[in-house]
Amino acid sequence: MGKTIAEKILSRKSGRDAYANDIVVADVDFRMGQDGTAPLAIRSFEKMNGESVFDPERVAFVIDHSAPSPLEGVSALHSLMRRFAKEKGITLYDVGEGVCHQLLPEKGHVGPGSLVIGADSHTCTYGALNAFATGVGSTDLAAALISGKMWFKVPETIKFICHGRLPKGVYSKDLILYLISQVTADGATYMAAEYTGEAICALSVEGRFTISNMAIEMGAKVGLMEADDKVWEWVRSHGSGEFEAVSPDPDASYAAVKEYDVSNLEPYVAKPHRVDNGVPVGEVKGTPIQQAVLGTCTNGRLEDLAVAARILHQRRVHPGVRLIVAPASRKVYLEAMETGVLQTLVRAGAAVVTPGCGPCVGTHNGIPSDGENVISTANRNFKGRMANNKAFIYLASPATVAASAVRGEITDPREFLE
Amino acid sequence: MGKTIAEKILSRKSGRDAYANDIVVADVDFRMGQDGTAPLAIRSFEKMNGESVFDPERVAFVIDHSAPSPLEGVSALHSLMRRFAKEKGITLYDVGEGVCHQLLPEKGHVGPGSLVIGADSHTCTYGALNAFATGVGSTDLAAALISGKMWFKVPETIKFICHGRLPKGVYSKDLILYLISQVTADGATYMAAEYTGEAICALSVEGRFTISNMAIEMGAKVGLMEADDKVWEWVRSHGSGEFEAVSPDPDASYAAVKEYDVSNLEPYVAKPHRVDNGVPVGEVKGTPIQQAVLGTCTNGRLEDLAVAARILHQRRVHPGVRLIVAPASRKVYLEAMETGVLQTLVRAGAAVVTPGCGPCVGTHNGIPSDGENVISTANRNFKGRMANNKAFIYLASPATVAASAVRGEITDPREFLE
Repeated sequence: MGKTIAEKILSRKSGRDAYANDIVVADVDFRMGQDGTAPLAIRSFEKMNGESVFDPERVAFVIDHSAPSPLEGVSALHSLMRRFAKEKGITLYDVGEGVCHQLLPEKGHVGPGSLVIGADSHTCTYGALNAFATGVGSTDLAAALISGKMWFKVPETIKFICHGRLPKGVYSKDLILYLISQVTADGATYMAAEYTGEAICALSVEGRFTISNMAIEMGAKVGLMEADDKVWEWVRSHGSGEFEAVSPDPDASYAAVKEYDVSNLEPYVAKPHRVDNGVPVGEVKGTPIQQAVLGTCTNGRLEDLAVAARILHQRRVHPGVRLIVAPASRKVYLEAMETGVLQTLVRAGAAVVTPGCGPCVGTHNGIPSDGENVISTANRNFKGRMANNKAFIYLASPATVAASAVRGEITDPREFLE
Repeated sequence: MGKTIAEKILSRKSGRDAYANDIVVADVDFRMGQDGTAPLAIRSFEKMNGESVFDPERVAFVIDHSAPSPLEGVSALHSLMRRFAKEKGITLYDVGEGVCHQLLPEKGHVGPGSLVIGADSHTCTYGALNAFATGVGSTDLAAALISGKMWFKVPETIKFICHGRLPKGVYSKDLILYLISQVTADGATYMAAEYTGEAICALSVEGRFTISNMAIEMGAKVGLMEADDKVWEWVRSHGSGEFEAVSPDPDASYAAVKEYDVSNLEPYVAKPHRVDNGVPVGEVKGTPIQQAVLGTCTNGRLEDLAVAARILHQRRVHPGVRLIVAPASRKVYLEAMETGVLQTLVRAGAAVVTPGCGPCVGTHNGIPSDGENVISTANRNFKGRMANNKAFIYLASPATVAASAVRGEITDPREFLE
């Protein structure tokens, strides 16, 4: 019987012939914790009487959520992570290195066919590299630190076939916001999403990360894609790991197959306070905004900053708007300087924060005020997400965020892209 | 009877012949508040039934201490500042513009002979431009917002004559730390300091800002210098204001005249927890450090970042150290990118935060952990200054900070400057 990508990877890693709804115990290729979760995992590790970490060279801790530390208590947690990492031989990416979900692919820790867990819900990002990558709780991470293994219920798969090519001014972020609006926030709960079709193939690997990153926002456990030449080229240029790609069998069994023609898709915006509350930009055009955020694990890559820079070139951020830019990693930050992209953003009025999560999770670096509207390239607009439950978050593509920052109100970026 | 610089400026601005210890009411040329103080000034303004702001074009508010905002409560204060500034026609430098003490000179608001107040203790920085510039309380600022005036007791003046030239590897920061160690933290309380001599004249204007910035750390109300060609060139290249310089009369009366030969000065480090606890770097060499801070209103200018970059070029920050860099302004940030200085710092491992005060005042962006040693280019090392009273702060020059960041312990920068 044919298998989906998820079934194939979990079969390979568990050493058995696994299908949807089977319970397997699988060897995990890489394990990750960030500064919101690793401290909890360390405490659980100690409660489990953990001594050594299994294959510590296949573990990374990342200090990205509150970096540099905004609070004494957070600093203590960072110290705990540093001490544990040093003691156990774990790689630690400290303050300034960037967002975990940018670093794991960038540093070559993840590739096609690998099985990765991270104590962060957007670990599904690496599905764009054909990796079964999923978020886990801190306690699960602790157990996996000790054993190198993890149990899974093999997920059913829902297949998204995106026909056509995205029109000019419409990006992968618009596509995933549209898909989520179609299937709703719990439309793929505990399923694997497989994204395929001409629209996906035409995307850069950077653009694909955005799609996989938000799989969790439709409830999916993973957001998988096949590894084409672009993926292999990307993986080879970012490390030397040995990987083996997985393709779905033609006769694989899917819980659902959803087909979309996206060749006439419009820029999409998810309105407060739900990610699946997406509408074409025209429906919210003119909504005043006070803060614009460009960055995060969803859209903080060079391609994202460059699209925004094209719009902001020789323009100024509206005086009533703060534009906060958080490059996804040190590498992205350096590349943005080397290409002049960052200078363009800064000249236009951007406030650039340290590579990392920026204000996305409300820990620092741009908490909105009461009643303010924020337009952000992040992946969540829940009430209170940015640490003020009287603020309103709109999610959009880097282009829409940049155009809106210039006008001071939600704006269709196609007006800037002649 | 001859006058000091302070006496001359306060005479001119009060329209009377004023000498030390006289009480005068003077016209203030420029008034400033930052996000730690302006909100209090606004509240006082309202309590005083203030309606309009006197000459609002000669007022600036700066959001620099917590920018971008790390907390909902802080965001509300920022909103208050924005609303008040807009309503009253005051210039507001928002998130990402930089530190108030860099912006006021940079934007041409301050020049030779002017009288400036700021609700921030390091307003004395502009003394390097021959301005009588001093920190005031928020209530005083509120009154001055309404009236445009301020009362002063004309300070006595203590004159520092620095003979000789600073040796290689020894900078203006080392000089001021040395001077403060000599006169102690209250050695010049409520006095005007006048800095002169060959060592001062040989400094760039940027280097002189560092000296004047720390006048308050010996208790001085202002830290004045004469305006030479370098100052006029600097002022002209940063704005078009009309200014008239003031020189002390040869027969001016001084409370004290202190002379130093600084031609053999060593790099200086102020040990915790007092700014006047300065010692030659050799005495603390080898002290392990966990965090290094380059920036602030004391040493966040291009010259400062460039000195550090020379040391960090093709080197790496020690793995046990976080190096946090806070450019003093958007202009400095852009210049540091254009000259490649920032790239060098980032490649070496620096975490660059948004132009502004960085972690100096402990509001965010790098709170140290318990027991950690921090070496910083800032101006204060008081216990708890950086929001952790179990941390230890050493103050030093950008060169010493950079050298120490490379070695992971306090290091004499001359070892890196062959």
